[in-house]
Amino acid sequence: MNRESALKIVKEQLTEHRYQHTLGVMETALFLANQYGADEKKAELAAIFHDYAKFRPKEEMKKVIIEQNMPECLLDFNSELWHAPVGAFLVQKEVSIQDDEVLDAIRYHTSGRTKMTLLEKVIYLADYIEPGRHFPGVEEVREMAKESLDKALIKSIQNTIFFLMKKGQPVFPTTFHTYNDLIMQSGGLNE
Amino acid sequence: MNRESALKIVKEQLTEHRYQHTLGVMETALFLANQYGADEKKAELAAIFHDYAKFRPKEEMKKVIIEQNMPECLLDFNSELWHAPVGAFLVQKEVSIQDDEVLDAIRYHTSGRTKMTLLEKVIYLADYIEPGRHFPGVEEVREMAKESLDKALIKSIQNTIFFLMKKGQPVFPTTFHTYNDLIMQSGGLNE
Repeated sequence: MNRESALKIVKEQLTEHRYQHTLGVMETALFLANQYGADEKKAELAAIFHDYAKFRPKEEMKKVIIEQNMPECLLDFNSELWHAPVGAFLVQKEVSIQDDEVLDAIRYHTSGRTKMTLLEKVIYLADYIEPGRHFPGVEEVREMAKESLDKALIKSIQNTIFFLMKKGQPVFPTTFHTYNDLIMQSGGLNE
Repeated sequence: MNRESALKIVKEQLTEHRYQHTLGVMETALFLANQYGADEKKAELAAIFHDYAKFRPKEEMKKVIIEQNMPECLLDFNSELWHAPVGAFLVQKEVSIQDDEVLDAIRYHTSGRTKMTLLEKVIYLADYIEPGRHFPGVEEVREMAKESLDKALIKSIQNTIFFLMKKGQPVFPTTFHTYNDLIMQSGGLNE
């Protein structure tokens, strides 16, 4: 599917604000894919569709999670996490994207997972640092992304965990496991 | 076992510095047990023996972890975590303490666990805030402990996770799960 067709499909699913975010993720994902040697075509496609399910009603997402045997513990955590796995399912079903690497990059773009692929890392990070993002710490992660995909990723996950914990909110276990996995794989931030 | 006999046994296992820490944990555990209605006798015993295995050689602790079928993932994380479960085992074997509640309070005093008992919470927190502890954030937790055992516990676990993550170190998964469990049980810090 070419970029134009993909963008046309996703535009109908999103608010204008979220569509602009998606364009930012696409540009950033292409830049990171080029820099770190990921497949640019797949990065473009995953970026365009990463938020495909963002505005589906909660009840619809809940139904998909249960019917498709996704981890039901998702339902105990913030519904912000739901659109990623549900999006991967709907993109396959409704848009007929069958590429597992692209679908996994969509599926894990919010929680991460242990043993993330290069493409998954690119989409996760692009979503975090695209130019439309403005929050404390994002500039530091942008700078780190120029030097090391893994270190930028670790920093972004740390920021997310700190943010949630400071608000006294639970943290999705997969996010914790992703942090530990990246730290153990990469030798940590302070090597 | 009375206090005097227990202290005599544990003194031989510890450095003078760690023995003084143990006395601090004992006093604090008694105070917290009294305040929150835990069994004072059990709190005293668990506090006295909580660091029983602290100075055992790493190889001995490793052997116990493997032979006693403790979670082997312990070995992938900081060896500071080992003395708690190994201590519970050795205190049962060498000191003949058979009280499961006391042994569990020793076992989980470093990692915590989901569904912590009142006694476990008292020992975990006493270890963190005893008067000999001096590190950033400890005073805030001492203050919180006057109002709410759970909130003080959550804060201490947050501090521990932040400390490890800022150093780019992995965090033992049980510590994460303990945080989530306490947050979900108590309604969080911001209720």
